Amino acid sequence: MYAAILAGGSGTRLWPRSRKKQPKQFADITGSGRTLIQATADRLQGLVSDDELYVVVGETFAQLAYDQLPNLAKHQIIIEPSGRNTAPAIGLACVHLYHRDPDAVVAFLPADHVIPDTETFCAALRSAVDAAQAGHLVTLGITPTFAHTGYGYIKRGEALPLETSETQPMYSVERFLEKPNLATAESFLADGGYYWNGGIFISRADQMLAEIQRQLPEVYSRLAQILAALDGQDAASTLAEAWQTMPDVSIDYGVMEGARQVAVTPLDAGWNDVGSWDALASVIPLNEDQNCIAQGETLTINSQGNIIYSERFVALIGVHDLAIIDTGDALLIGHKSEMQKVKNVVEQLRSQGRNELL
Amino acid sequence: MYAAILAGGSGTRLWPRSRKKQPKQFADITGSGRTLIQATADRLQGLVSDDELYVVVGETFAQLAYDQLPNLAKHQIIIEPSGRNTAPAIGLACVHLYHRDPDAVVAFLPADHVIPDTETFCAALRSAVDAAQAGHLVTLGITPTFAHTGYGYIKRGEALPLETSETQPMYSVERFLEKPNLATAESFLADGGYYWNGGIFISRADQMLAEIQRQLPEVYSRLAQILAALDGQDAASTLAEAWQTMPDVSIDYGVMEGARQVAVTPLDAGWNDVGSWDALASVIPLNEDQNCIAQGETLTINSQGNIIYSERFVALIGVHDLAIIDTGDALLIGHKSEMQKVKNVVEQLRSQGRNELL
Repeated sequence: MYAAILAGGSGTRLWPRSRKKQPKQFADITGSGRTLIQATADRLQGLVSDDELYVVVGETFAQLAYDQLPNLAKHQIIIEPSGRNTAPAIGLACVHLYHRDPDAVVAFLPADHVIPDTETFCAALRSAVDAAQAGHLVTLGITPTFAHTGYGYIKRGEALPLETSETQPMYSVERFLEKPNLATAESFLADGGYYWNGGIFISRADQMLAEIQRQLPEVYSRLAQILAALDGQDAASTLAEAWQTMPDVSIDYGVMEGARQVAVTPLDAGWNDVGSWDALASVIPLNEDQNCIAQGETLTINSQGNIIYSERFVALIGVHDLAIIDTGDALLIGHKSEMQKVKNVVEQLRSQGRNELL
Repeated sequence: MYAAILAGGSGTRLWPRSRKKQPKQFADITGSGRTLIQATADRLQGLVSDDELYVVVGETFAQLAYDQLPNLAKHQIIIEPSGRNTAPAIGLACVHLYHRDPDAVVAFLPADHVIPDTETFCAALRSAVDAAQAGHLVTLGITPTFAHTGYGYIKRGEALPLETSETQPMYSVERFLEKPNLATAESFLADGGYYWNGGIFISRADQMLAEIQRQLPEVYSRLAQILAALDGQDAASTLAEAWQTMPDVSIDYGVMEGARQVAVTPLDAGWNDVGSWDALASVIPLNEDQNCIAQGETLTINSQGNIIYSERFVALIGVHDLAIIDTGDALLIGHKSEMQKVKNVVEQLRSQGRNELL
């Protein structure tokens, strides 16, 4: 079994902690002492040896990946010349892993998710690997905890009679669904047969490449060029050239929705994509003052429900339900209910050419 | 005419900008580019030459006073061995000024007030000096703008037929009044014959010393020792010794309330004692986003009524009526209506021995 951590993405919704030069996956967002990508690698220990762990990352952040995952050899950090979304990134990982081991089974994992219950996560992943070996494209279906309108959903079909190594149900996938409106999301929750699409996939490398070939021939033809050149002197130039015309397409839309033999297995392990500052609150326990301290020393007077990430001492007086994010050069204070507007802040800074703050 | 700026006081209500090592009078609280004591000295230009300006300050802060007011000679910085409240501080200034000029008329001014309308302030002060020369102990009565319960009040008596250099009314003082409750404060405002006691006094030095002698003989006896030794080799040791047993008493309670020939002249010049972070808001104009920026670059989204003092870039999203005070080592965020609790923060830090944050 292999794992490929997908470390693209800019994470602007976690500004000012997530920055152009250090996106959230390379930052210790949760105050755990480990960056999100380090925590993702840690979570796989026991399932995947260091030698079987790969990272797909943009050129800009390759050094951060080397530095933060020092146990990985250089060839395990696969560099994308530019961001082309998840289908080419997963395809590129498949090229490398198929080249190494034609029977490779690979778990593709976003670098920036928080999954507190490692044991449950590993059990689900083990079952998924078994199902993948049996010929399925498997996705982990996140057991939804509320009617979230910001995620895609997966509708499960019939139970699959697979013999997996754990007592973990496995279903066929009836449909992948786009982000729903609230009423639809509520009906999904009431139905019980729907999961959040957390973007975690497990499959054989050859099968994933075959699906890309069938559904995304323009992506596949470029991957085939890269694979053919992989051992030669032209590897770097072939990659660079092929990538210039590589289509931008997501694995969900481009492959999974139309794939054959797709399976889903539930994951109920406190998954959180830390997609916003207010989302972070749910993965950090409240302290005795009913505030959520990701980092920083605080003194609070009549203040509850705040989430704090600070590099200095913080005193709060009579404030409630705020996100307070304080880095060396920027301070963000927002009401938790409006934190999705962080992207507007980032957009304004970008339009003003304030690169040093991005 | 002389002026003596009283630069004692710790200013804990403006924590974390006002600090043990740099109280608010030595800080640029308003973002004007000048510290409060510098602005106080600036305000007197045109009335008092550099040579006629004195500062009374504790030993700890003498160097700050030298540095911030470089035009003053060393003897113009009068050092109190320790804080003994305003009557001894004013008495000590009188000793030095009477010794220099037996006919000295002195304006005693707190170092930490903001008075935006300098012209009106100077006109009131000129009239007060004339009245002081005619034998009155004069106080500037701040025209109240609302029923403040945190100040003492002055009830004016009959108009005095003094020939002053400006068209500025002068009244006898009927009474000094302690901080009132809200109903009483409201009745004062409705009456119209009451002023806030802003702690600004003008008198002849000899007359002030005579009042101290009459009303506070224990203070006077020590001042007399200091005066007698002023030119000799024992000046420093006499001061130190006399000060050890100097009573702690305010000029209002100890002298002004019981003084003869007390006069008051109105001051309507935007006076503000910057006694709290929310008070600061009224001396800094609102910006186009309806926020009050004392210092710092800000980007606001759906946020109004906040007061911001920051050493870094600040972004606000959906927050209202907050005071946001951000220094290099501490961040204070409070609702404007509860900012009087800053003193509780300072007390807790003190009880925890967190001297570096005080």
